[in-house]
Formats: sequence, C-alpha cells, structure tokens
Amino acid sequence: MSKQNRRIVLARRPHGAPVDDDFRLEAGPLPEPGAGKVLLRTIWLSLDPYMRGRMSDVPSYVPPVQLGEVMVGGTVSQVVAADAPGLAPGDLVEGRTGWQDYAVADPKGLRKLDPAGPPASTALGVLGMPGMTAWCGLGNIGQPKPGETVVVAAASGPVGSMVGQIAKLRGARAVGVAGGAAKCDHVRSLGFADCIDHRAPDMAAQLAAACPKGIDVYFENVGGAVFEAVLPLLNPFARVPVCGLIANYNLTEPVPGPDRSVALMRAVLTKRLLIRGFIVFDFAAQQDAFLQEAGPWLAQGKIKHREDVTEGLENAPRAFMGLLRGANFGKTLVRVGPDQA
Amino acid sequence: MSKQNRRIVLARRPHGAPVDDDFRLEAGPLPEPGAGKVLLRTIWLSLDPYMRGRMSDVPSYVPPVQLGEVMVGGTVSQVVAADAPGLAPGDLVEGRTGWQDYAVADPKGLRKLDPAGPPASTALGVLGMPGMTAWCGLGNIGQPKPGETVVVAAASGPVGSMVGQIAKLRGARAVGVAGGAAKCDHVRSLGFADCIDHRAPDMAAQLAAACPKGIDVYFENVGGAVFEAVLPLLNPFARVPVCGLIANYNLTEPVPGPDRSVALMRAVLTKRLLIRGFIVFDFAAQQDAFLQEAGPWLAQGKIKHREDVTEGLENAPRAFMGLLRGANFGKTLVRVGPDQA
Repeated sequence: MSKQNRRIVLARRPHGAPVDDDFRLEAGPLPEPGAGKVLLRTIWLSLDPYMRGRMSDVPSYVPPVQLGEVMVGGTVSQVVAADAPGLAPGDLVEGRTGWQDYAVADPKGLRKLDPAGPPASTALGVLGMPGMTAWCGLGNIGQPKPGETVVVAAASGPVGSMVGQIAKLRGARAVGVAGGAAKCDHVRSLGFADCIDHRAPDMAAQLAAACPKGIDVYFENVGGAVFEAVLPLLNPFARVPVCGLIANYNLTEPVPGPDRSVALMRAVLTKRLLIRGFIVFDFAAQQDAFLQEAGPWLAQGKIKHREDVTEGLENAPRAFMGLLRGANFGKTLVRVGPDQA
Repeated sequence: MSKQNRRIVLARRPHGAPVDDDFRLEAGPLPEPGAGKVLLRTIWLSLDPYMRGRMSDVPSYVPPVQLGEVMVGGTVSQVVAADAPGLAPGDLVEGRTGWQDYAVADPKGLRKLDPAGPPASTALGVLGMPGMTAWCGLGNIGQPKPGETVVVAAASGPVGSMVGQIAKLRGARAVGVAGGAAKCDHVRSLGFADCIDHRAPDMAAQLAAACPKGIDVYFENVGGAVFEAVLPLLNPFARVPVCGLIANYNLTEPVPGPDRSVALMRAVLTKRLLIRGFIVFDFAAQQDAFLQEAGPWLAQGKIKHREDVTEGLENAPRAFMGLLRGANFGKTLVRVGPDQA
C-alpha cells in the first residue's frame, strides 16, 4: 500500500507543562494486521487530562508511555480489514488505539458502534469514558440524595458537565466551577443552579454563597485552589469521589507549606468525610448499565453535551496543551480522518 | 447529706499540650436527682484522646466543654438512687457522666452492666467505646480480607490493640506501631506479626520491611509521621478508616510545608484509596452486635487487654496529660471510687 501512517510519539518526558518538543510526528508504513487482528483507520481521537500522567515516569495505576511510543488515547475508528467475527470493513468501533492515523488492534478491546445510533464522537465523550466516569463516580461513591448539593469543577468539560446533569436528574442541586464567564454561562444553561468562575479573586466566597446548605458531594477532578475552597463547606458525611487532579499534573516541585494535609485529615475525622479515588476502568462491569441509562437521556434531550474539535492529527499536541490549561470548551476531540474513506 | 462531690472542670482552654492550670478541682454538694433521674457514684473514669478536642473551642462533631464545666468522659458508676424502671441502688451502669465523684444522669444514657459479667472496667475499654471503635472501623470501613496486611499505630492502646487482634481473628496480618521496646514486645505478645517503634530513626524503613506485601488497611488514630511512613506502602484499593489524629491534637500553628496534601490526594487517585472518617457513635446501632461478638472473644481468651490505672480523681489531669504524650501503657482509667460503697 502507498498509504502512510502518521503517529505522534512521546519524544521527551515533559518538565512541567508539556511543550511542542515533547512530541514528535512520525510517518511510516501502514501496520500489517496479523491473524485474529483488525486494521483500523482513526476518525476521532479523544484528548483527556489523564494523558499527562502517562507522559511522566512515576508510579501510577498503569505504566507510562515509553519514549518513542505512540501516545495513548481513546479513538473512534473505521475497520479497514478484519480477521475477527462480527467485524467487517466499514464498521465503526470505539477503542484505545492512540494518536495515529492507523492501528492494528485486538478485537477484544473494541466496541462496535451502531451506525444508526448517536454521532460516533459521543462514544468518546458523553456516552464514553468521560460520561461514564461521571456516572460511576456519582453512582458508586458520591451517591447524591434529592435536595443535596453537588459541586464539580471543570464543569464545562465532559466529566464535569455530566456530573452536574446527572446530579440534577437524581434530584440534587448542582453547582459548577469553571474558567471564565462564557463557560459559566454555558454551565448554567445545562441546568446547574449556579457556576462560579475560578478566576474570580473572591472565588471561595462566591462558592460559599452558592452553597448555602453546604456541600454534600464534591466530585474532585481538579485539586488545588478549588478543593481548598470546598473543604470548609463540606457537610458532615460528605462524599468526595476523586477522579482527577488536573491542577497538580504539571507540578515540578513540592507545593510550599503550610502542610494542608493536617487540615484535610482533621476535616475527614470531624466531618466523617468519605474520600475515594477511582478510575473508570475499576467499574468496567457497569458499562452496559451506564449506556442503558445515559443513551436514552441523550436521545431524549435530558442531557446536553458540547464538543471542542481540533482538525488534524498534527494539531493534537497543541490541543492537548490547551486542554491542560483549560483553553478547551467542551469535550476535546481531534478529527483525524473523514467519517468514510 | 454531708458527702461532697468533687468535680474537675475546664479552667482554661489549653494552648498546645494541656497543663495543670487548664483544669480545676472543685468541691460542692451532691447533686439532687430530680424526677425520672438517677444519682450515680463514679467508680471508673475513662480517659481518651478525643477529650483534647473537647477542650478547644473549634468546630468539631460536638460542641466543646465550656469553661467552668465538668470535663466530659465515659464512666462506670454505681446507682445511689434511682427514679427509673429497671435501675435500683447498687446497680452498676456505664454512662458518660464525666470527671466527678457523683452525677445525676438520665437513665436513657445509661447501660446496665451484668454483675456476673466481665470486670466492670472493661465496659470502658475492650468491651466499651475503644473496643467498639476498633470493631466498627474495621467492620464498616477497613474490611480486612484474609491474608491482607493491617497496620495500626498506638498499637498498645485500647483501640490499636483491639484493631490488630480483630484483624488477626479475621485472618489478616497485623502490624503495629508503638512507642518503645516494652510496648512493642507487648503488642507482639497479642499476636501482631510485628511491631515497629515509632521513635526509631529508621521507622519508615522498618515499617516497609515489616509489610513486604504492602498495606491494605491502615487504621488511622495518630496522623503525623506514622501516616507519612504508611502512605507510600499503601496498596491499590487500600482502606483508611480515620478515627483519631492524636499527633495533631496539640498543634498550635500550621505545620510547615511542603504541602503534603498534594501527595496524599495523588495517592488517593492513583491507588484508588478509600479514606473515611468516623466516630463510634455513628455506628451506635451496632453496639449489640459488637458485644455479642467481642464478649465471647474476651471470655474465651481470644482477645487480651491491658489497663493503665491511675488512683484518685484528683490525678486525672496528670493521667490525661500523660496519655496525650504516650506515657500510658494500655487503656487509661482513673479509679475514682471503690466498687461498693
């Protein structure tokens, strides 16, 4: 074949915020699918904050990307060739094939998408990993009750916007935190009772005013100053699902004191808080249940979603750097190739 | 009556570690039991770390002791006079009547003790609040599985010693942390696989060596340096019931940096930790279940306990100050009066 496969590999481990030179665009021949494998052409690439962790060689729940390896990532692809039952050329699948035009994948790691279903890109957002992260974190850990107050940061993003909308569907009151007036307006339009701009100098006071009955569930996906503002507002027996800490991902040295863990643990004790970290894959067995509930919600307009699309694989690094500093507005996607080819 | 009631009241709020002048011994007439009330003579007074929190005027799960008020505390008492069904003079009861010779109590807050049962003092220790704290924290939050490793500090104390012994009865492996060789020897004699002296300069390395498979449950009752040594050893999905932070109770100013909450929350996320604060009273409904399991354990010698008795109400402040710096060895009790009078 004359087609080329472009791949974006990890060229260097970032020091702090990733920069252009930490990535490298390579081109090479198309991979050959072996027996029992599937050759895929990427249509959509999902960019997500967790990828920053994979770029660093520090212990985490999975090994990091190795230098020279293709950056990891969720994708929606079209099947080019398949030696696998139930998959044929032209089929759409969701998988984890990374930042590249083509990939060979094991069919066990793929989920076939219904061409008559919702737009394929939703399999990476509202009906994909971010949406399921929100649904699992609330359902298994946050467990908001009617009338309770649920706070989430990065509230215009794919996880945060889903957290607030699910909380509202469960009868709770959602308060978001987001960066800037436009994002806050959008978050309110989703049905959040309020949204606070984290850039406001009096953010903590605004958050307190927006939560007159305190906070019962804080869905943690940012850390940093937002968590510090949330902590004194947490009610007794509040639950804190921890799914991300984007404010900390680019830290290069210890944060200066005081040692805030003392106040944190004191609050855990005196307020009997529940703090629990999770990764959506811990709840993989709940995927069908998630889709059975969230699919109809989306179809019926009970939940809304917003996508922030960057065109072209070559622009993925820039889009990712923007995501880490909050420059995206909605679910960050890269359009790698056309829907049909 | 000519008898006097001696009471130890909060004279001043401590700054840091409590000192003699923070307490005042007062004498006055015996209280008069009103209709439906019970007059009690104190036999045993329990001293427990949580009392330090009640001496400070900071928000917590219950209001603090007011200046001039009797210090709060669990007690075993003999009924002197009772206007209450089921209670007669001479009966032994467990209650929360504080640091004084006599008290008037509502019968609803009293638990009648079986005179043919275990020694009455155990109602304040191994079969009382500390024992139940261990049992509830492990049962509801820690949930050790056979073969897992459970670590607890203050392991020669009434909570810690019970945590390790229950963990072992559940098939887990218990590792204690305690202050000094004598306490560590005692902890090992209870069936703990090992016990580390927290005063050793290489405490963290010793703890790591004692936990070759990592830590699955860390029962938190001290905070500070022990928690810092535990954090890197926690396994994925480890559980951390938080029932006390005695290392922090006398802090008078913020702990210098770095801000350890960053590493803590990162560990929560990447290891999917569960950290949950609790107070034994949150599980009050489980008291019968606790006694039904722990009572036979004690009678059959499956659990052991150790008491550290101070004679005389007037010596309670000194005994309490000693408790806060780890000078006690076993459950701290004050013998306030004779068994029979």
